[in-house]
Amino acid sequence: MALIVQKYGGSSVGDAGKIKNVARRVAQTKDKGNQVVVVVSAMGDTTDELIKLAYQINERPDERELDMLLSTGEIISCTLMAMALEAMGYEAISLSGAQAGIRTDAVYSRARIQRVDPERINKELDKGNIVIVAGFQGITDEMDITTLGRGGSDTTAVALAVSLGAEVCQIYTDVEGVFTADPRIVPEAQKLPEIGYEEMLELATYGAKVMHPRAVELGELFSVPILVASSFNDNPGTLIHGGVSMEVRNKVRGIAHDLDVAKITVVGVPDRPGVAASIFEPLAKANVSVDTIVQNASINNITDLTFTVAESQLGKAMGVVKPIAQSIGARECVSDSKLGKVSIIGTGMQNTPGYAARMFGALSEKGINIELITTSEIRITCIIDEAKVKDAVKALHRAFELEK
Amino acid sequence: MALIVQKYGGSSVGDAGKIKNVARRVAQTKDKGNQVVVVVSAMGDTTDELIKLAYQINERPDERELDMLLSTGEIISCTLMAMALEAMGYEAISLSGAQAGIRTDAVYSRARIQRVDPERINKELDKGNIVIVAGFQGITDEMDITTLGRGGSDTTAVALAVSLGAEVCQIYTDVEGVFTADPRIVPEAQKLPEIGYEEMLELATYGAKVMHPRAVELGELFSVPILVASSFNDNPGTLIHGGVSMEVRNKVRGIAHDLDVAKITVVGVPDRPGVAASIFEPLAKANVSVDTIVQNASINNITDLTFTVAESQLGKAMGVVKPIAQSIGARECVSDSKLGKVSIIGTGMQNTPGYAARMFGALSEKGINIELITTSEIRITCIIDEAKVKDAVKALHRAFELEK
Repeated sequence: MALIVQKYGGSSVGDAGKIKNVARRVAQTKDKGNQVVVVVSAMGDTTDELIKLAYQINERPDERELDMLLSTGEIISCTLMAMALEAMGYEAISLSGAQAGIRTDAVYSRARIQRVDPERINKELDKGNIVIVAGFQGITDEMDITTLGRGGSDTTAVALAVSLGAEVCQIYTDVEGVFTADPRIVPEAQKLPEIGYEEMLELATYGAKVMHPRAVELGELFSVPILVASSFNDNPGTLIHGGVSMEVRNKVRGIAHDLDVAKITVVGVPDRPGVAASIFEPLAKANVSVDTIVQNASINNITDLTFTVAESQLGKAMGVVKPIAQSIGARECVSDSKLGKVSIIGTGMQNTPGYAARMFGALSEKGINIELITTSEIRITCIIDEAKVKDAVKALHRAFELEK
Repeated sequence: MALIVQKYGGSSVGDAGKIKNVARRVAQTKDKGNQVVVVVSAMGDTTDELIKLAYQINERPDERELDMLLSTGEIISCTLMAMALEAMGYEAISLSGAQAGIRTDAVYSRARIQRVDPERINKELDKGNIVIVAGFQGITDEMDITTLGRGGSDTTAVALAVSLGAEVCQIYTDVEGVFTADPRIVPEAQKLPEIGYEEMLELATYGAKVMHPRAVELGELFSVPILVASSFNDNPGTLIHGGVSMEVRNKVRGIAHDLDVAKITVVGVPDRPGVAASIFEPLAKANVSVDTIVQNASINNITDLTFTVAESQLGKAMGVVKPIAQSIGARECVSDSKLGKVSIIGTGMQNTPGYAARMFGALSEKGINIELITTSEIRITCIIDEAKVKDAVKALHRAFELEK
């Protein structure tokens, strides 16, 4: 008897009919003789509606209160899922994050799971119950409710799979798996039957929205296989695991893209020790994630410092950086919000020359100008004009023959 | 520094604007130097909407799951209330029933409070916080969430007032207090500045909807004064307490009425020991509350057994009683759902003759036929035609000169 953890996202449980549909899928898994733990997100737009309500009342809602408010969304969907299974004659029980033993730190709105106390879940599984766990939430040692931030329910699912020793963590969503590129942009994009953790991590981090990098990282750390598949059909999905053959002929596995990119350049910065820290520490404190950082070679001890942030954080970032730029004697501070990034991802890329050249060539052929370049061992990313991102994804998909 | 517990019902926190309005009232109480604990119900129709959603998914939702589902309504309103207070510059924190230490038995949908562990609330009060507690809910020793059933939030408030040693428990609602009769029926009805626990208990039990009898009973048991007042204005309300002067000239304090009455008569019952039990035990097991019971004097060992139930429970009750009536050899089983009851309530009534006669006379003058009569030490109730209830309330209010 295998233990399987399944996770269903908000769009898969958006209304009563969809909840019943998911319940049928869960029941099938149970019928095959498995023990099943199901993690659900909040129904459809519930979380957004609760946030809207909170902001009607307080423009800066306290994060502890907001977490407790938002936690209700997943409790609603998990109780309804248990009821749907019971209506079909299955034994089921819903558990809140607290009841499921998801213990976190007290960093509200983006809590990290510290441990899972699986006693209650194990007790319910032993009774023969299908256990439905509210995703995205946990509880502190002080009994305060936290939420896990972005990708929270995926993280709950993988954390439970780890601590319960599940055979596989299945993430059911509104796409059929991981593709070589976004199929809405590249119709001939191919679904990958399998992918390694590292490649998936880079794809997710650099724009593939199918799964949150945080959950992939957790899966990698504890070697839990993760299946990403559709909750609306039975087509095979993509298995993320560690056993993917290391040497594949075509080393580019996928193209990721992201439109949510803005660039800030601090022009004419006196190049002395501590200048970078004086800019990036306050940004970190303001909870602004800085992505790519480029510093030009300095001329006469004067340099330009360029970095990218999410477009949605540009205003906040400029508010932090402008006064600092002034105080360190920089000439000016300029920004550009109309940028995007496109990345090619694949293991072994660094040890095989020519990938970067082929990428830059494909972009140049389409007349796409590259603003910044960053790389990792298994990724090359170009920051380009936002309006050219789709063309770039198509061109790269063709250049690396991913449709084959 | 006094400790005050306030409770606001669902209609008082129905939307963002109303929540802000209540927050201002809470803040005023805090500004006067009090420690404040606030109990809130779910916003407006939230509970009904959640129930509807559950029934869309399962025609007989499991009570444990339903309780966990419904508990989210009060968590939403209490977090929003805390945010509203914080927006006004006050320190506030929301607590779920579990966090507030409301420990109950495991009888889902109608749990009883077993004890309150007030450590967390006291800790938050000591920090200077206004503490907002989710009403209507508690937690079992197994960490399962329960709801308290009808009148649940009132009961939460009084239980907290008891266990925290509050000076007063203030119940804010959409009426201004306890009236001599329903002002929608009797425009000249008077608001009572004070009333004793027992009289309030009878008024509430016999139809005055202003407060649930269960919470009144708890207040009486621990001698906690309860103020009932409007959340929409500052008019003085009604204080329910034990110190009401015992000898008042006009001993009728109020008229209660209830339209939700149905009558079942089991005709031609063989009058032998155990017959009544054979009918009423199964009704109790089916969770049907039986109110008035009347058995005619038996003729030739044959009698008629008549009792009343809530109109909404008539179908269920008939389903239980009909097969029993047949099995014990009764002639038939008839019902009448078009009944109501009207009650006069006041201490000392039993020791002062003439009240019953005056009541029956007033009803008879209006041509109102009395179907059944029941009495307690401080109450006389007549079951009458539902269509005549309003006339009866008016006639009795006049007959006992309650407008004075």
